[in-house]
Order: sequence, then structure tokens, then C-alpha cells
Amino acid sequence: MDDLKHFIRNVPDFPKKGIGFKDITTLLKAGSAFSKAVDDLVEHFKGKNVEVVVGVEARGFIFGAAIAYNLGIGFIPVRKPGKLPAETIKQAYELEYGTDAVEIHKDAIQPCQNVLIVDDLLATGGTVAATAQLIEKLRGNIVGIGFLIELDFLKGREKLSGYEVFSLVHFDSE
Amino acid sequence: MDDLKHFIRNVPDFPKKGIGFKDITTLLKAGSAFSKAVDDLVEHFKGKNVEVVVGVEARGFIFGAAIAYNLGIGFIPVRKPGKLPAETIKQAYELEYGTDAVEIHKDAIQPCQNVLIVDDLLATGGTVAATAQLIEKLRGNIVGIGFLIELDFLKGREKLSGYEVFSLVHFDSE
Repeated sequence: MDDLKHFIRNVPDFPKKGIGFKDITTLLKAGSAFSKAVDDLVEHFKGKNVEVVVGVEARGFIFGAAIAYNLGIGFIPVRKPGKLPAETIKQAYELEYGTDAVEIHKDAIQPCQNVLIVDDLLATGGTVAATAQLIEKLRGNIVGIGFLIELDFLKGREKLSGYEVFSLVHFDSE
Repeated sequence: MDDLKHFIRNVPDFPKKGIGFKDITTLLKAGSAFSKAVDDLVEHFKGKNVEVVVGVEARGFIFGAAIAYNLGIGFIPVRKPGKLPAETIKQAYELEYGTDAVEIHKDAIQPCQNVLIVDDLLATGGTVAATAQLIEKLRGNIVGIGFLIELDFLKGREKLSGYEVFSLVHFDSE
């Protein structure tokens, strides 16, 4: 089993010129690497008594669902506005230009339930910080936040201070 | 363990008036129901020598990833146009008004690889039929198509003739 990092493909100039995109599809299609990534995230948080996993649309669904399945617990999707059919709460967050938002069903989480948030990539941290705010509003207890990849140079971790943040693979620069 | 159908919530008038939306989030958040759905899909296709699972954005990622993880094999995302970073092929399909399209990475699948397609819901079947066309273009061997829910009255199965289509839960009417 090679290092997980070797399974991640760098795609230059995506989604725009000058950005080097970390493509995880090359990791996902290698069964042993995908399994190892899920198992390593589960292993890291196993002492936390996780009761439910929240995954952030869309790539966060991939790791979040597999982790929830491994643990035999429920999975909660956090989505872009307008996608969830029942009553939701919404949290806006800032982008480089403008704002975006995420939503969660109001009945998704029980008060005091132990929640693990999962996404594929920690970049500037806006989406996951907004997700954490949603979970706090529902009075969930965030016991950890897990990522496949962390782009250390974007310092997204600073937006998540107070939480236990764990990433399997780190990139120090573009 | 109750019947999986009881975990699916009907949300009236979503996304528009007169449509009864089958909300799977109530099933996903119940760990035992989510696990059972994944296990039952795996069980059904276990004789098929599945080598890779293709999941359709976004809810198909949830079941597709958990099934791939269970089998210890790779997961391939099929996405809306513009989301996949490397070289893709695209397939358009018809909607009630207009068209939409899905994409897959050109290097996602090896010729003759045994592919299981997974999505949450079979409605009119357009998205999954387009997904099957993409896989055929890459010369993958589609050994089955699995859904959590099938809306029998929309006859989506007819668009997928020639494939083994299996759904865990059926609805005969709105």
C-alpha cells in the first residue's frame, strides 16, 4: 500500500488558470486506497463515540457515507440551498467573490448527539465552518472534523479552531 | 428492523406543486436502515464479480461509495458538467423541458471492467441511461444497476432494458 498522497492527481489550471486542483478520483478508483482512507479516518476518531456522520455535498458524501457505513451509524447530508426537501436551516459563508450557503434538515440531528463532520478537502474552510455552525444551531456535539486532504497553506484550520481537525494528507504549497 | 420503505419520508409539493418527493434523509440518518440498504444491494449483486462501482451525483455517491467500500473496490463518480477536473466524455439526456448532461473521466474505467451503477432513485431513468451510455463508450461491462427506490409508475426501467435493474423499494403511485 503506497502512501495515499501518491493516489491524488494534480490537475493544473482547474477550475481556473493558476489553480492546481487536487483530483481525488484517482484515489477513489483504487479500491485499496479508498478503503485505506476510510479505515484511517475511522481509526483516528474511534475513541470519540461518534453517533452520526455529517457529509458535505458532494464529495464529502463519498467519504462520509463510507465512514458511517463502517461504524453502522447514520449519515446526514449538508447540501447547497434548495436541494433538501423538508424544513431546513441555512448558513451563509464568504467566498473570494460573493457568498454561498449550505443547508441541513432541522430534524437531522438530536441535541447532544455526537457528530463527526467529513469532507474531502480542507481549503479555506468556509463550507465546513458554516456546516459546524449549522450543527451547533441544532445543538449537536461536534466531536471531530475529518478530511482526506488539507491544503495547509490556505490556513483553513484557523476557521475551525476549537474543534479536533484531522486530515490524512497534507499539501504545503500549490 | 422494519421495512426500509417506512424510513422514507414523503414530502408533498417538492420540488414543485403536485410532486411527492421521496426523502431518503430519514433512512440515511437511521444507522440500521442505512446499513441494511447497503448490505441488501451488495447481497443482490454479489454473484456478479463487480470490479468497480459508479455512483451518480449527488445522492448516488452516498450508496455507491458505501457499496464500493463494503466490496473493497474502487468508486467512480459520474457528475454534472464542469465538475470533474481531468479529461471527460459527456452524455446529454432529455428532461421534461430541455436537456441536461453527465460526465465521466475518460480514464475512469478499464475496457471489460465489471461495473455496477448505483443511484438512490429510478424515476424516468434519463440520468442513469446516460450514465450507462458513458460506461459503454469506455467499454466497461455493466453487470447491474442498483437503486434504493424505484417509482414504478414512471417506467424508467424501460430506458434500461438489457441491464439487470434491481431496486430495494418500489412505489406504485405518487
